[in-house]
Amino acid sequence: MKKILTAVCVAISLVSALAQQSLNQKPDVQSPVINGNNVTFSIYAPEARNITVTGDFAGSPLPMARDSVGVWSASLTDVAPEIYIYQYDMDGVRIADPANAYTKRDIATNWSMLFVPGELTDIYAVKDVPHGTVSRIWYESLSLEPVLGRVPKRRMSVYTPPGYEKSDVSYPVLYLLHGMGGDEEAWLTLGRTAQILDNLIAQGKAKPMIVVMPNGNAALDGAPGETPSGFTPPTTRLPHTMDGTYETAFVDIVNFVDNTYRTVPERKSRAVAGLSMGGFHSLNISALYPELFGAVGLFSAAISPRDNVDAPLFAERDVLLSRQFADAPTPYWIGIGSDDFLYDDNVKFRAKLDGNNYPYTYYESDGGHTWKNWRKYLAMFAPLLFAK
Amino acid sequence: MKKILTAVCVAISLVSALAQQSLNQKPDVQSPVINGNNVTFSIYAPEARNITVTGDFAGSPLPMARDSVGVWSASLTDVAPEIYIYQYDMDGVRIADPANAYTKRDIATNWSMLFVPGELTDIYAVKDVPHGTVSRIWYESLSLEPVLGRVPKRRMSVYTPPGYEKSDVSYPVLYLLHGMGGDEEAWLTLGRTAQILDNLIAQGKAKPMIVVMPNGNAALDGAPGETPSGFTPPTTRLPHTMDGTYETAFVDIVNFVDNTYRTVPERKSRAVAGLSMGGFHSLNISALYPELFGAVGLFSAAISPRDNVDAPLFAERDVLLSRQFADAPTPYWIGIGSDDFLYDDNVKFRAKLDGNNYPYTYYESDGGHTWKNWRKYLAMFAPLLFAK
Repeated sequence: MKKILTAVCVAISLVSALAQQSLNQKPDVQSPVINGNNVTFSIYAPEARNITVTGDFAGSPLPMARDSVGVWSASLTDVAPEIYIYQYDMDGVRIADPANAYTKRDIATNWSMLFVPGELTDIYAVKDVPHGTVSRIWYESLSLEPVLGRVPKRRMSVYTPPGYEKSDVSYPVLYLLHGMGGDEEAWLTLGRTAQILDNLIAQGKAKPMIVVMPNGNAALDGAPGETPSGFTPPTTRLPHTMDGTYETAFVDIVNFVDNTYRTVPERKSRAVAGLSMGGFHSLNISALYPELFGAVGLFSAAISPRDNVDAPLFAERDVLLSRQFADAPTPYWIGIGSDDFLYDDNVKFRAKLDGNNYPYTYYESDGGHTWKNWRKYLAMFAPLLFAK
Repeated sequence: MKKILTAVCVAISLVSALAQQSLNQKPDVQSPVINGNNVTFSIYAPEARNITVTGDFAGSPLPMARDSVGVWSASLTDVAPEIYIYQYDMDGVRIADPANAYTKRDIATNWSMLFVPGELTDIYAVKDVPHGTVSRIWYESLSLEPVLGRVPKRRMSVYTPPGYEKSDVSYPVLYLLHGMGGDEEAWLTLGRTAQILDNLIAQGKAKPMIVVMPNGNAALDGAPGETPSGFTPPTTRLPHTMDGTYETAFVDIVNFVDNTYRTVPERKSRAVAGLSMGGFHSLNISALYPELFGAVGLFSAAISPRDNVDAPLFAERDVLLSRQFADAPTPYWIGIGSDDFLYDDNVKFRAKLDGNNYPYTYYESDGGHTWKNWRKYLAMFAPLLFAK
């Protein structure tokens, strides 16, 4: 029996050591280590000559110091609660933290994630509350056929609220759009949409709703690696970006969602919001289809088209806005950071709204064109939606 | 007008440059570059002293050579079509390829992905075929309450076949279980389950089915970062691993799935399969609940329990197998690589089955305990399921 147990133990150690494919974490190096609001980054790199940490918690790279063994460290104190992204610069090469399993792709680059918890970011954390379901589902977009020469199968992410599977209740829908270079994963991974909605709904601060996060690039059917084009390098230089193509075809998405999910298919139960290019899309889609959307959110929105500026959608913007604001969206919500490079464009756009007495809600935050702001805007915007 | 257009162009360049957060890919370095069956890896690291590539395409690290600018490269020829994972070793630090946006976490480590396409791996590629939906959904496991002291909310991944949303057809279910250290993401990310099922179904080789990929760790409610424990380091040293706890509670998963999805809730329309620890789970779950599962797949399965070897589930294995094989699962499928460290345990287990004239199907591949084999086993196993 002892012999058998020994054999079992040997087998178990092997299983443990070799489970799936090999583990590659350096022993004894944990990184990042978070103690309250203090954070220490570490990397075991005995042969490196210089390492710094770059992240959105600091304006300039943070030097790391080497100990006698070859572990490099840098510490930060009083770090505000937030989800940050960071990389190391090791002798001129930008890398993710090898000891940190949590990375997220932002367009074409993988960043390490740092979550400093606190009251301010409680809304982004996974809590012991009922969780909605997150699905990746495909739809066909017939409206894109004349432009693409094919009927594309396109990928979207959908959040359905807790209880969706167990009831026959119908829900309002928020269409939530990503920025340039982003895709249908971005609002989930970097935007924490599922966690924010789970928490707001559990607290009674937002109505249970479906959130639809489609891919917003007319020339791409889905996120990098998820389409027949395979593992090609992600890019921001896509054709048909902000030229009216995607905006016009958006009706295919609304129809697919209304035909596939238990929605309330009415204007007052539909909202559209987005960040940067997704804000541009929200502005134009809601102006083009005012009968579809009763609420609009522009988060750090781009205002001007990139191409095809003479397209009726853009050339006749004033006419479209006039028609849209005949029955003003509630809310028409604009949020931007005071350091955002799109700030001036938003000032001009608000002046246009003011000049016409079009009502809107404005929120100005610190900071610039970052996920820190977009998560916050979503957490502020969602509770305003679908009031009775 | 020209001035406005210029301003627009400046704004657009800014949008393009600063879209979301900053891009960090070195200019002109693309990696990996795939030409037929030739692959070149590159990294711009002018200050590095030594760089090698380690991947499951080669037994030993591949040295890289530096050019005069500081770009290091290594090439491989005649690489067999496959999805490989690789890392660089740069002066002693293991890193993902900074120029490759495609990384997947395997337990606690991020690896870069290399997909060499070809006829042999066509089944893993995203094709222009109808796509099923992939969901992450949460269930409560009452059976775990006595062990954990709480009713856990647990996370699972579910693949529903193309057309699920548009019909009222009921489907058979394959429960597909991950290995030690893995989680409910592993079969999707590294195992390519959605692509394999989409392609097999489109080719008429597998019946449309639901695939349920639950988290298989009794002490963890979901994948790293997806639970209230936050961004803690993933580990393989979990309590209640392979001690009978998870196996016994598995009935909660089956009940949840039958109550939530349109399943055919019958033995002949249910299969359970898994890799390594998941094979161990499949062996024991199907022996404990023979009335539930009409087909079983053991992929590189662990055979011996880790703890709690005297638990009735393990101590009475022969009795349970005898009961199970009174109506033998079709198939009872065993697959393993000739270099697998669990090979001898599988030889002994097959001897036991042979000694009792219990029928099973056996497939022996090259190689060892790797995702290359598990993807292949799934592609071979799924077509055998749910024959009329």
